[in-house]
Amino acid sequence: MSVRCFVGTGRVDAIPGTDRGFAYGDGLFETMRAHRGMVPWWDAHWARMTAGAERLRITLPDPVQVAREAAALLAGDDGVLKLVVSRGDGGRGYGPPAASTPTWVLSRHPLPASAPAAGLELRWCAVRLAVQPALAGIKHCNRLEQVLARAEWLHLPPAERDAHEGLMRSGDGDVVCATAANVFVLHGSRWRTPLVDRCGVAGICRQWVLGALEVEQSVLGAAEVDTADAVFLCNAVRGILPVARLGTRQWPLQAQVSALQQQLARAHPGFAPPQSSS
Amino acid sequence: MSVRCFVGTGRVDAIPGTDRGFAYGDGLFETMRAHRGMVPWWDAHWARMTAGAERLRITLPDPVQVAREAAALLAGDDGVLKLVVSRGDGGRGYGPPAASTPTWVLSRHPLPASAPAAGLELRWCAVRLAVQPALAGIKHCNRLEQVLARAEWLHLPPAERDAHEGLMRSGDGDVVCATAANVFVLHGSRWRTPLVDRCGVAGICRQWVLGALEVEQSVLGAAEVDTADAVFLCNAVRGILPVARLGTRQWPLQAQVSALQQQLARAHPGFAPPQSSS
Repeated sequence: MSVRCFVGTGRVDAIPGTDRGFAYGDGLFETMRAHRGMVPWWDAHWARMTAGAERLRITLPDPVQVAREAAALLAGDDGVLKLVVSRGDGGRGYGPPAASTPTWVLSRHPLPASAPAAGLELRWCAVRLAVQPALAGIKHCNRLEQVLARAEWLHLPPAERDAHEGLMRSGDGDVVCATAANVFVLHGSRWRTPLVDRCGVAGICRQWVLGALEVEQSVLGAAEVDTADAVFLCNAVRGILPVARLGTRQWPLQAQVSALQQQLARAHPGFAPPQSSS
Repeated sequence: MSVRCFVGTGRVDAIPGTDRGFAYGDGLFETMRAHRGMVPWWDAHWARMTAGAERLRITLPDPVQVAREAAALLAGDDGVLKLVVSRGDGGRGYGPPAASTPTWVLSRHPLPASAPAAGLELRWCAVRLAVQPALAGIKHCNRLEQVLARAEWLHLPPAERDAHEGLMRSGDGDVVCATAANVFVLHGSRWRTPLVDRCGVAGICRQWVLGALEVEQSVLGAAEVDTADAVFLCNAVRGILPVARLGTRQWPLQAQVSALQQQLARAHPGFAPPQSSS
């Protein structure tokens, strides 16, 4: 893993101890799939970060500099690129300074292992996502709910570690997302995905799916996942992830989901299957 | 302001770029009033941080080292001492490492200006506190709600900046706290303060008040603040803060609140009024 830290336009070795990102999670982030040194969904990631920065009134760094540094860090390779931008330095209290210089960190990480071809195994998380319209949709750095949810099964003994991902409900009981992915369900020919106006993140791959399929954004009850004919998760690093099991409910691999994976592979070269030598 | 940063037992210049505090607000903090180099409520602050660390499964630094470094930073003076502890370094994903070395930052700040003797002027914040029992009560570092609430009036033109603090309601509409203080209301001889089991922070000064007065912890509606005979805020840095106005509702300074301030001054030397030369 390689990391580069900046305050404003200047490179620094590490983050100042009084940074508001460290103090309050007062920042935004994006996690991106890079292919041969490029980030095919760069514009969508930057647009979401811009929307988040407007909501939180955070000043973003110069996008030209960020893109140049990202390219230097990727050095033409495949991988995962993470960008975190905080409001920057700022006193002791919650009140944000009227103007501030952002602190930002770029890091490069290996691509995750491929998901099992048959699909993911899911569990329900006990921790709920609090309903907070003021923060819903954007990818801010207040992520303790996801940290707690992930910890529910991550450190179980291997024999009990029964899931690859966990589905999360809102405080009201509605299905929202997985800890690090959005969720889509199929009933007959009707695709649906939860609204993200009260909690959850408006995922970049979710946005791509909304353009690729006819999908209804709606409130989704937990029982409606169990009764679905097909379920998949998606995120901008791992693409389309078919779901094989949720608790005792099992699904065979669904042709419509496989077709969507192929469509994504054509649209975003990072998700193309490795070429076999024929 | 002076700042000291540590990873585990070792002093560092700044926070590593991959710290989970910066990435996710995955940490805890305490803001403490120091008097002549000591923190009279140290044990209560450390106990709350310990409860938070158990909830989040964060490893705390050695309390003896933290206390020694705090004393060195305070150098016998009065001031505000802030301690932030994060889970430390940890990969790219939400899942916390099974074991990690905490990153921690101590900083010293000047005492805030005295509150107006007649009492504080308050407003209602538009941003609500999301209901999240898994995080309620502890002083974790996911504080964007407070940042947004504070920003509602902090940057208004001076003529419109009509409040010293803002009261916050939960997503359900119940009164919870101010952006950086707990709240108590009096009806007749009955003191009440909101429960902090669904959102809000279990304040250290709130805890002291619960031992000093007979107080009922309950659900509190917004109308019950307007109809109160007296209202005060409190926190561990500023002590007991009488409230003079909320919107158009005004309160004269109440003898019971003044008596409580004097009781606090006797219990905690940092809150004693400056001695006049007579």
